Amino acid sequence: MLLMLYLIAITAEAMTGALSAGRRGMDWFGVVLIACVTALGGGSVRDVLLGHYPLTWVKHPEYLILTSVAALLTIFIASLMRHLRSLFLVLDALGLVAFTLIGTMTALEVGTGLLVASVCGVITGVFGGILRDIFCNDIPLVFRRELYASVSFLAAWCFLLCQHLQLPEEQSILITLFGGLLLRLMAIRFNWNMPKFVYKGDEH
Amino acid sequence: MLLMLYLIAITAEAMTGALSAGRRGMDWFGVVLIACVTALGGGSVRDVLLGHYPLTWVKHPEYLILTSVAALLTIFIASLMRHLRSLFLVLDALGLVAFTLIGTMTALEVGTGLLVASVCGVITGVFGGILRDIFCNDIPLVFRRELYASVSFLAAWCFLLCQHLQLPEEQSILITLFGGLLLRLMAIRFNWNMPKFVYKGDEH
Amino acid sequence: MLLMLYLIAITAEAMTGALSAGRRGMDWFGVVLIACVTALGGGSVRDVLLGHYPLTWVKHPEYLILTSVAALLTIFIASLMRHLRSLFLVLDALGLVAFTLIGTMTALEVGTGLLVASVCGVITGVFGGILRDIFCNDIPLVFRRELYASVSFLAAWCFLLCQHLQLPEEQSILITLFGGLLLRLMAIRFNWNMPKFVYKGDEH
Repeated sequence: MLLMLYLIAITAEAMTGALSAGRRGMDWFGVVLIACVTALGGGSVRDVLLGHYPLTWVKHPEYLILTSVAALLTIFIASLMRHLRSLFLVLDALGLVAFTLIGTMTALEVGTGLLVASVCGVITGVFGGILRDIFCNDIPLVFRRELYASVSFLAAWCFLLCQHLQLPEEQSILITLFGGLLLRLMAIRFNWNMPKFVYKGDEH
Repeated sequence: MLLMLYLIAITAEAMTGALSAGRRGMDWFGVVLIACVTALGGGSVRDVLLGHYPLTWVKHPEYLILTSVAALLTIFIASLMRHLRSLFLVLDALGLVAFTLIGTMTALEVGTGLLVASVCGVITGVFGGILRDIFCNDIPLVFRRELYASVSFLAAWCFLLCQHLQLPEEQSILITLFGGLLLRLMAIRFNWNMPKFVYKGDEH
Repeated sequence: MLLMLYLIAITAEAMTGALSAGRRGMDWFGVVLIACVTALGGGSVRDVLLGHYPLTWVKHPEYLILTSVAALLTIFIASLMRHLRSLFLVLDALGLVAFTLIGTMTALEVGTGLLVASVCGVITGVFGGILRDIFCNDIPLVFRRELYASVSFLAAWCFLLCQHLQLPEEQSILITLFGGLLLRLMAIRFNWNMPKFVYKGDEH
């Protein structure tokens, strides 16, 4: 089940990456590259930081094909995209929580402590989007959207807590998925935001 | 021969990096750093993603010296640069194909499949330029220039096809070099471009 | 003693990162992430490039907590910051030299040559700040400030020279610290700058 969620997640993330590239008027090759970076970048950063080789897409090159096809498809159905906005927000929220779960579990397998595992969950969840924004020369959106990174962080700790309570893994995954999805969708619906820090001092 | 091409390639890339840094008015240290990142960054990203240690410039620090000297030289001969534009385009095209070949061959040595090997070829070919543009806070040029990344991708597959046909390695390299160089120069001459994807929707 | 300097350095760097995030109006989560990247990013890049695992913050998650607390504290005392400007410049200079020393020593332990060790020192010293500026979508400041990267480079070679002269390690560290700190503070006081390279040519 986690694999299926992962495939949905990388497809949805690849499509948001392709749309970002389209906003910058990139050529088709750029669209495919940004899509792959958005979908697979978070996991790659996590694995490089943990020294956990081979990377997912090196082991499973079919994921590269999936994200590339999703990117090219996006080019042709872009005009439909604005009608699918709600669907996309749900898929993106699902992807965020699924990525976080996978990142946390991978770190635990490698043998890190709980704090580092939750950080790896957040990195997997949000770094694809951060890399997308850096490549497109935007300020990372992640820190402006409703509880985006916070949902990832809470989901990671929800899973770690369930595991600590010795729930079976499948149950932990399900609880985290539903909890995280609910929190993210409520944050969008009610426009919950983390407080912002606005500093107007001189350049240090 | 590939080593000589590699040395020409990192020198040419270091010089394009130095010019980019100069457009941003960086100090000499910044010029040298951007030059090194442009020339050696693509191979470093590839090796980090493959877990292929030690990196080229750790094993051969003399390449760092070569790129630094090329960068400092560029500062002094910058006023001549605009007269050498054509020469530079040829050297840059040569560098693109040489980097792609080296990246593809390195990945095959490490034991990746064909698709991942071609992706590693493209990463080696274009990521130095992408990092240069990110450090200089530009939108990566790579996705706007005439078939730049596409030439790299086709060159990688040309080499893989030659190898599949069991041609001797030297012959495969020569065919790829001439084919890639020809395609890139014709793309510049006739202004061939990949189609662009322009999306005007709202921020997702 | 080096450990204490390191703790002071990551705290100071985390605070400069938090202020940068505040200038961009990021939310609290973004502030913490930028602070951690600024404080721990230089060492992480060095260790990834050297293949030197586990990374510092994976081994010592308490450093993550220290930088996060420093970031959150910065939010509350931001209005005091402009009165502490001089203190910060000294702490930042101390941090630069301490990071450089640690980076150089780590590279030597891994067994690199002298040139690569000095480059690793500079990477450790300045890459946190470069990553901060990339995440905040600024042109890296590092290449515009008074001798910033140059002080790091000279400090690395000062340490290597002391070691070559077979001075005891503690003495080498002290000499480098005082020399580097003095040079940096004099550069700020007298506004010493590296010459800049300004190039107005067309996009290559």
